[in-house]
Amino acid sequence: MDNIFDLIIVGGGPAGITAGIYAARQNLNALMITKDFGGQINKKAVKIENYPGFFEIKGSDLAEKLKDHLASFNFPFEADSVTKIEKKEGLFFVKTGSKKIFKAKSMIIASGADPRPLEVPGEKEFTGKGVSYCAICDGPFFKDKVVAVIGGGNSAFETSLSLSSWAKKIYVFECSPKVRADKANQILLEKTGKAEVAVSTLLKEIKGKSVVKSVVLQEMESGKTYELEVDGVFIEVGLMPATSFVKGLVEFSECDEIKIDPKTCETETAGLFAAGDASDVRYKQISVACGEGAKAALSAISYLEKL
Amino acid sequence: MDNIFDLIIVGGGPAGITAGIYAARQNLNALMITKDFGGQINKKAVKIENYPGFFEIKGSDLAEKLKDHLASFNFPFEADSVTKIEKKEGLFFVKTGSKKIFKAKSMIIASGADPRPLEVPGEKEFTGKGVSYCAICDGPFFKDKVVAVIGGGNSAFETSLSLSSWAKKIYVFECSPKVRADKANQILLEKTGKAEVAVSTLLKEIKGKSVVKSVVLQEMESGKTYELEVDGVFIEVGLMPATSFVKGLVEFSECDEIKIDPKTCETETAGLFAAGDASDVRYKQISVACGEGAKAALSAISYLEKL
Repeated sequence: MDNIFDLIIVGGGPAGITAGIYAARQNLNALMITKDFGGQINKKAVKIENYPGFFEIKGSDLAEKLKDHLASFNFPFEADSVTKIEKKEGLFFVKTGSKKIFKAKSMIIASGADPRPLEVPGEKEFTGKGVSYCAICDGPFFKDKVVAVIGGGNSAFETSLSLSSWAKKIYVFECSPKVRADKANQILLEKTGKAEVAVSTLLKEIKGKSVVKSVVLQEMESGKTYELEVDGVFIEVGLMPATSFVKGLVEFSECDEIKIDPKTCETETAGLFAAGDASDVRYKQISVACGEGAKAALSAISYLEKL
Repeated sequence: MDNIFDLIIVGGGPAGITAGIYAARQNLNALMITKDFGGQINKKAVKIENYPGFFEIKGSDLAEKLKDHLASFNFPFEADSVTKIEKKEGLFFVKTGSKKIFKAKSMIIASGADPRPLEVPGEKEFTGKGVSYCAICDGPFFKDKVVAVIGGGNSAFETSLSLSSWAKKIYVFECSPKVRADKANQILLEKTGKAEVAVSTLLKEIKGKSVVKSVVLQEMESGKTYELEVDGVFIEVGLMPATSFVKGLVEFSECDEIKIDPKTCETETAGLFAAGDASDVRYKQISVACGEGAKAALSAISYLEKL
């Protein structure tokens, strides 16, 4: 007979690892499918100050600690990507990038999300050297500095508001002729007296030496380009949740996040749970992802007990 | 002029400490009021295996690490209890046990909860030496052992179900003539073939030497007492959230938990947030409490920005 897992967890970031710890301690016949461990944590070039218990820890070190914690239970994992999940007669069929198929009674999707990059010259080169995708994480490093925020939605304005506690000057650049942020957020940002918002302005390039020194911008109407000295660039043009492989099984938010019941991490498909940045949980933080991973695992355990 | 805090956090457990870390990194003028740090973690006599990043850590060691993390921000705190919170003209007035009054624009209640003790002889003495209040935490330590579960509600039955992965025999004792657990839970427990449920049975005493050896029980109808050899006693007669000081400001669940919007930790009073075991969050776990503390702080920061 085929092996049918009690639970398959997709993703090895903080949410998936926490779910794994709970599943392991419950003696579930479980499997994790992930290409790497730590998720977005690994991409943080600055130290993490806000995961409780570790003060100023390197992203890669925290990722290692989480991975080791799960490994201490000999948790089985498959180094692979997931391309499609289907549910047939109460069982989940998980297809992977290397064309394997795994079966499970329940699933936790903790595949995370990545900040959507702009794909302009200099962006990749200066990530962690002035280019950031997380003001809550990196804002304190820009005390009395000049920063540019790219984007015109609520997240760009909230990022700018948050940065106003630190930066002395904030430029917000939006490529379309209008910002999309709530009026309330626009008024609040204006009140800080630190921000300047320019619409119809395109970021063309990020320049620097060892760290960011300036941005090159283009005025859309005139086509004119100009250079502006800045110490940091915050890119807030959305996230890309890695969730396409569950299309048809769940409801999605506008941003392709999996909609969950925030109390239980349940999705609209019985036995399918989602946690962390792949879900529509409001706050995308490491500690939140861990908490959500624990919730999803405990809900899955309760689902399995009632099968 | 009086000092008006941006934020006062009540409680120094995982939820409160995580909220404090986020508030500190946002440069808020904040205060924590707590009698101790670590909350229920300190009461865990067995090692904690399920807080991500620390494998097998003593409760008191984890509490110390969390406390040190917050202290690294020089976070101000007042070693006191809170007796009453009132809101007048948009401000919160916080009265303490030592008759001080603090004022704040926003509040996070993270005052936690304690398992309700039975208050029988031997209970205190053997806590952590066979007496436990958390099957999810301590279940694995009772592999192939005999345990008694005290209580007749869903939590007692779910505890018993969870223990059935480990224990070889589970006795459930309920003092009233009927169990209150859902029929579904009763059927599931019966199916394990490991459990015996006795109603109208009162736990009189827990006996042992260095660890639990037996329980003394009384049949309510006949008044007859008898002794039963067990290795562990799980007490599941409810929690006591420490929330009485916010009566009038929030809605409570049946169990005196503060009702929150699970996405934001908002309560029905604007500017008042709750996180962790003081709230009606479904799962009472350390990692969940941390995640909820982060959510509450980020919601409070957003509330303050919009004031």
